[in-house]
Amino acid sequence: MTYTRQLYHFAFDPHSRAVRLALGEKKLPFEEIHVRYWEPSDTVLRLNPSGLLPILVETPEPGNTGQTHKVCEDRSIMEHLEETVRDPALWPSNLNERAEARRLVGWFERKFDYEVNALLLHEKMEKRLMGRGAPDIASMRAGREALKDHLRYFESLLQVRNWLAGHSLSYADFACAGQLSVLDYLDEVNWARYPALKTWYMVIKSRPCFRPLLNDKMPGVPASAHYKELDF
Amino acid sequence: MTYTRQLYHFAFDPHSRAVRLALGEKKLPFEEIHVRYWEPSDTVLRLNPSGLLPILVETPEPGNTGQTHKVCEDRSIMEHLEETVRDPALWPSNLNERAEARRLVGWFERKFDYEVNALLLHEKMEKRLMGRGAPDIASMRAGREALKDHLRYFESLLQVRNWLAGHSLSYADFACAGQLSVLDYLDEVNWARYPALKTWYMVIKSRPCFRPLLNDKMPGVPASAHYKELDF
Repeated sequence: MTYTRQLYHFAFDPHSRAVRLALGEKKLPFEEIHVRYWEPSDTVLRLNPSGLLPILVETPEPGNTGQTHKVCEDRSIMEHLEETVRDPALWPSNLNERAEARRLVGWFERKFDYEVNALLLHEKMEKRLMGRGAPDIASMRAGREALKDHLRYFESLLQVRNWLAGHSLSYADFACAGQLSVLDYLDEVNWARYPALKTWYMVIKSRPCFRPLLNDKMPGVPASAHYKELDF
Repeated sequence: MTYTRQLYHFAFDPHSRAVRLALGEKKLPFEEIHVRYWEPSDTVLRLNPSGLLPILVETPEPGNTGQTHKVCEDRSIMEHLEETVRDPALWPSNLNERAEARRLVGWFERKFDYEVNALLLHEKMEKRLMGRGAPDIASMRAGREALKDHLRYFESLLQVRNWLAGHSLSYADFACAGQLSVLDYLDEVNWARYPALKTWYMVIKSRPCFRPLLNDKMPGVPASAHYKELDF
């Protein structure tokens, strides 16, 4: 059964990026509907009352008698995609590795968003987008310190694993790449200090699914010098 | 294949409660390991580096050649349980209703925890547990105001639905009941204002899976007068 897909997203929302990568990896084309998430439209709020992104809408193509699907936010979209488009699998087949991949996806939602994004991304990107004035230096510094802990943790995992959750590429890699690519655009990742993480990022950045993200532009904020370089 | 189950949890952690309800509904007995989440042990941090609860460990019984499973936090546990113990199903079979159930589970993690628990539960329960002094009245008031918005939203859903996500009981109901039952213990829910929500809560509170939660006791804080009453 074939569907036409629309993705409501914001180019520099890490959770939106995770889903764009997954859709790309599964070779599912989609129409992009750009949403300024800090001022969600009625359409967006009707689709997702939380106002959070991304939102995937799948409309049956002519001849497909299925329903229109509406799926909100990255974790639900990951599960939905995996249940409906099995190839390539993006949850590992081994139960423990699958649980590990889901744990790491949750890590970004319940720890990274709180400890890093609520400070660093809020001060450096969000306030500018929202016209809320200059960044608070102390908050930015606290976010940068927290980021170091997270990067060290990812480095420790990737020292002994091929991919973030273990042997195979999974949604955990896309969740992590969605986050780090936004911070990399803002030149907040000192890759030289995290060699295994840097190798992993070079590999994932070279995948075709990553290409659209490299062309994203934040109004008024140029990308870091190496943002688009595959070999950095 | 049969497993012995252990659940690392804290009795008044809403996410732990959601999983206890789901395990009970699936009639899966488990050994309880009580964790004071604000001072996680090395054992807990080895199982889940985020320190967040609950954590499910499944050990194969003699004769079962399967692996030991380690699954961290409620959303991963819900997906794991559904993939391994299918009866009764707790994700709806219809794709849209399933997406709706997952959206609502996410609502508690990405909105309710931020807007209500980080204020109200933190001030009223967490500070006491952690010995961090008296609650801040202004924060508590802000959490209570946010709670009203959430309760109105759940009420609006349950005015037109049997269960939170639609036609069938799902993890969304357990995620919501896990949250509201903690606030009800603390007498923070004015049920009379939300008649559909109250009816739903009476129904879910009457299920056998709910019984263990009614016996939980918070040190130094007695339960609200109606906490244990099925007809309140």
